[in-house]
Amino acid sequence: MTEGRRMYDICKEIFPLNRSITGDAVRETFRILQNYIPDIKFDMHEVLSGTKVCDWTVPDEWNCEEAYLEGPDGERIVDMKDSNLHVMGYSLPTDITLPLEEMSEHIYYLKEQPEVFPYVTSYYSPRWGFSMSYEQFKSLKPGNYHAVIKSTLAPGSLTYGEILIPGDTKDEIFLSSYTCHPSMANNECSGPSLIVALARYITDMPKRRYTYRLVLAPETIGALTYIEKNLPYLKEHVKAAFNLTCCGDDRAYSIIHSRYADTYADRLLTHVLAESGNKFDEYPYIKRGSDERQYQAPGVDIPMVCFCRSKYHIYPEYHTSADNLDLISPRGLQGSYDVMTKCIQLAEHNNKYRTTTLGEPQLGKRGLVPTMSSKETYQQTLALKDLIAYADGTNDLIRISELIRQPVGLLMPLVDKLLECGLFEIVD
Amino acid sequence: MTEGRRMYDICKEIFPLNRSITGDAVRETFRILQNYIPDIKFDMHEVLSGTKVCDWTVPDEWNCEEAYLEGPDGERIVDMKDSNLHVMGYSLPTDITLPLEEMSEHIYYLKEQPEVFPYVTSYYSPRWGFSMSYEQFKSLKPGNYHAVIKSTLAPGSLTYGEILIPGDTKDEIFLSSYTCHPSMANNECSGPSLIVALARYITDMPKRRYTYRLVLAPETIGALTYIEKNLPYLKEHVKAAFNLTCCGDDRAYSIIHSRYADTYADRLLTHVLAESGNKFDEYPYIKRGSDERQYQAPGVDIPMVCFCRSKYHIYPEYHTSADNLDLISPRGLQGSYDVMTKCIQLAEHNNKYRTTTLGEPQLGKRGLVPTMSSKETYQQTLALKDLIAYADGTNDLIRISELIRQPVGLLMPLVDKLLECGLFEIVD
Amino acid sequence: MTEGRRMYDICKEIFPLNRSITGDAVRETFRILQNYIPDIKFDMHEVLSGTKVCDWTVPDEWNCEEAYLEGPDGERIVDMKDSNLHVMGYSLPTDITLPLEEMSEHIYYLKEQPEVFPYVTSYYSPRWGFSMSYEQFKSLKPGNYHAVIKSTLAPGSLTYGEILIPGDTKDEIFLSSYTCHPSMANNECSGPSLIVALARYITDMPKRRYTYRLVLAPETIGALTYIEKNLPYLKEHVKAAFNLTCCGDDRAYSIIHSRYADTYADRLLTHVLAESGNKFDEYPYIKRGSDERQYQAPGVDIPMVCFCRSKYHIYPEYHTSADNLDLISPRGLQGSYDVMTKCIQLAEHNNKYRTTTLGEPQLGKRGLVPTMSSKETYQQTLALKDLIAYADGTNDLIRISELIRQPVGLLMPLVDKLLECGLFEIVD
Repeated sequence: MTEGRRMYDICKEIFPLNRSITGDAVRETFRILQNYIPDIKFDMHEVLSGTKVCDWTVPDEWNCEEAYLEGPDGERIVDMKDSNLHVMGYSLPTDITLPLEEMSEHIYYLKEQPEVFPYVTSYYSPRWGFSMSYEQFKSLKPGNYHAVIKSTLAPGSLTYGEILIPGDTKDEIFLSSYTCHPSMANNECSGPSLIVALARYITDMPKRRYTYRLVLAPETIGALTYIEKNLPYLKEHVKAAFNLTCCGDDRAYSIIHSRYADTYADRLLTHVLAESGNKFDEYPYIKRGSDERQYQAPGVDIPMVCFCRSKYHIYPEYHTSADNLDLISPRGLQGSYDVMTKCIQLAEHNNKYRTTTLGEPQLGKRGLVPTMSSKETYQQTLALKDLIAYADGTNDLIRISELIRQPVGLLMPLVDKLLECGLFEIVD
Repeated sequence: MTEGRRMYDICKEIFPLNRSITGDAVRETFRILQNYIPDIKFDMHEVLSGTKVCDWTVPDEWNCEEAYLEGPDGERIVDMKDSNLHVMGYSLPTDITLPLEEMSEHIYYLKEQPEVFPYVTSYYSPRWGFSMSYEQFKSLKPGNYHAVIKSTLAPGSLTYGEILIPGDTKDEIFLSSYTCHPSMANNECSGPSLIVALARYITDMPKRRYTYRLVLAPETIGALTYIEKNLPYLKEHVKAAFNLTCCGDDRAYSIIHSRYADTYADRLLTHVLAESGNKFDEYPYIKRGSDERQYQAPGVDIPMVCFCRSKYHIYPEYHTSADNLDLISPRGLQGSYDVMTKCIQLAEHNNKYRTTTLGEPQLGKRGLVPTMSSKETYQQTLALKDLIAYADGTNDLIRISELIRQPVGLLMPLVDKLLECGLFEIVD
Repeated sequence: MTEGRRMYDICKEIFPLNRSITGDAVRETFRILQNYIPDIKFDMHEVLSGTKVCDWTVPDEWNCEEAYLEGPDGERIVDMKDSNLHVMGYSLPTDITLPLEEMSEHIYYLKEQPEVFPYVTSYYSPRWGFSMSYEQFKSLKPGNYHAVIKSTLAPGSLTYGEILIPGDTKDEIFLSSYTCHPSMANNECSGPSLIVALARYITDMPKRRYTYRLVLAPETIGALTYIEKNLPYLKEHVKAAFNLTCCGDDRAYSIIHSRYADTYADRLLTHVLAESGNKFDEYPYIKRGSDERQYQAPGVDIPMVCFCRSKYHIYPEYHTSADNLDLISPRGLQGSYDVMTKCIQLAEHNNKYRTTTLGEPQLGKRGLVPTMSSKETYQQTLALKDLIAYADGTNDLIRISELIRQPVGLLMPLVDKLLECGLFEIVD
């Protein structure tokens, strides 16, 4: 079974839950994810409603048991049972009958995409509402409509989880995604499934220079909570951070750069995407939209980029009922897994190296090149010689790769050979 | 009445005077200018002939009462009464009759522009001469010509004036133009008229962070005089300087950059011109020609650029009798006024700002954005959020404008709002 | 007689010798070169076989008296007497008869260039062999072949020579080429002939700011030997270094840049080539191949570029029997001489200058420009004024030339004038 297939199974299992930024569906999501990696422990955290986090406050916990809208003839127009996107996130409890005209103020739809219904929430302002397709909305007959929302909005807590996988140093690679959207596949389920797959990959690595931290929290308020609790430690130790979202379709590869497109994470992911041979889309920070908004905010400054397949806000199904399990695929998820594991491999190898000889080493006596020079053999050993020529202790492997125009994939085994025979040393 | 119209009136009034680098016509020019801004005082300075300024010496004062050339039949060929360009600036007094052949050595014309006559001077070498059109010159009949120049070149003084408008700080914006050319409209009158208009604009500003200094002096020798007297103070306080010349026609907008095109004045004026939507011409410092030659000279290094509509040396009427009141217009002058007042506005607002929250602020609770998130509302608040995202204390407003691709014109009111509600603070 | 012709004569005289990285032919080459510059002394050095140099060891000395291959009918197939390229460099002594099939393992040819025979060596691995054209190889009949190589490989020494021409300072310009290839004209003889010509040129200069060091040594092992002996002194004093090779044909001008294309040598040679008006080819360091490999190796870091006409590895005759005296010409050698002497002139003049006046100097009173300003005269003095405008003590002459878009060739005499009249001073 491919990793992509395993990831798709995770998505399928967590898709139906009615997640929001708080609530039992989030906790249930973590229970499911934990089952896929029984040996790797999620540290779970609960943060009480009312807690101040940065400029925000953890809201009351929302749970919703039932929600439907009945028409003049008593028929169910929309029902949360069919799709939890039908009820606005954080809807107040209600049981009210209103004529269509008044009820319409509580109905959301997308005129430009008349066949799908939108994902809507109102976390910080008391409201209630339903979402339906514009086609359905247009077909509503005049008359009285009965709205029933059996929700609770009450003191509780915000839930997040993290995994820490120690390495040889305290330098950290930080990976995050979120758990706060109801039934959307690409813009929700793909992220946690990739986090779980990477946790397994990292744990299975024979050795790790970096410590890896993987965090799943509700978007925005969860990221802010995590930042407020951990910022000094993160600032000291995180060398590269990746926010993972919309990782499941197979139409594109995207990077949303950091504020100045200049962090180590930008370099790693850009290099991996460029070397992959896949076309990929680069977005500046002004096109941000997920938790890089918080981690890269002024004063926070965690060196984070965001990785997507098709980018949020760009693909037409985003934040609609069309972002479902048909949109993502094992193949799409596998592509994201491959990119991120290559980033990890590269980070682990991307040292600065220095040759231990003055002048060129004699490669022939070490069996690294043919011993008889001729016009033909010269070119064959050029890649090896170029690697050595730029190993002056000032360039990391990415930079050498750019300077000598050879892929990191080719250079990494050569580096291993040179370290082994003592011609290279790592520069701290 | 538009400002451009008021400026044109000034030009009209000072145009006829026979200015040179010294003399009574310069003093009369200042008297006229002062009348237009009775509440704003020109500080007048007189520097004696013979005073050493930098590598130069203030020349004797030149005044010219009458100058004409009579032909063989006694008819007036050219007369200073018709245009003061007919007599070479700083011509020695003369009253001599010479055959045409010898007199021709004292006659200046432009073969390539046969219908106009050139502006010629000889400040530092004793000469006399007349300027006429090449067509007129060709029509001269053989015979004796009688040259009369009733001029005086005698110890006197060089005249310049300056206006100082204090602001909250001693940081200065420096604006200069010159008063040393006889009857030319674009390459003389437009500059002082813009200085007068800006003096009024700046005085009327409700508050000023910057102190503004406006200087009118004869080109080169006047600038050098000003520099020698004031350099240490200028070097300490002037943050941006603008030399204003040829500001009255409406064919182009031009910036002549500083020596390395890297001063704050380059940034301000370039940004304003770029954001204006008008096409504009950028010239490197090797195309300099006015007082930026002195203010940007090695060792002087005042952060100055030069602003023109059509640039000196470039437009065909430059330094000829065709640079007259038909070449400039209220509309052309207004354009210059608009550019320079926008530079001033931008300088006053171009601080570095820092957000006061850790992570994104909650804009909703402050009424800065809609409280319910949906696909539609997101884009509306992006500009505001991008402004905040780059307010990390390292970028001034120009840089933020470039980074987030939003015009400064749009951002300035947002900055005011954010300062007001405490989400922004100014970084010194 | 042109310098190119004199250089060609040198090439002709040293071409026939069977040089290798050691041996008497190298010593004979130096004796010949010394004859051309009797007043300028080569300091000769001998380094014993077995001496460790960097990661390498000076090999035993190789001399070869006779070498030929006889066919089944006793006829000479190839003979070192016809071309010393026929015998592999450092061939072991041998006298053996083998059937064609086995003998073929000792025969080297070029399938892609069937009419010429390649230059082959095996310095560090014991082998013997012959080189012939592929056409000749294909014509060999089956039967027994008799190989005779009367060579000696025995303890001896490696030979190199250097010339030091002192200047006013200990700052050095370093020039190198090599003496280690048998009969090849461009990729061997042209280099030493250029070194000899430049030694004469430098000695004849009326004054020198720089000390000049010219080194001829066997490629790689000789360069490493020189580096090991002299590195600390070279690192302290060498400001620009030029490796000279393949300087004799007239098809191209080439620069092989230093590791980061950022040394003073890169600037000098690039500027001279660009200003020459000749098209020239720029190669990054990954295209290196001669002693810049050692001098620019990590830790060595001598600021060296390599100069060629047609670059080694690129021109089809390279390392074959076609690299003969027909490939090079007096005209080709002269071109190299002109480029390198211009580099030397430029290095000698490329100071940072500062104007001694505050503001523009009055050029008129020094007779440097016309005293009467008019539209026409302005442009004439622009070059002079631009030179002064950028003489702020931060730019060397190359940078000024780039900034003001005037050739160094034009600026050098102006600099001399300005120094003479006291308007310029040199900044250390």
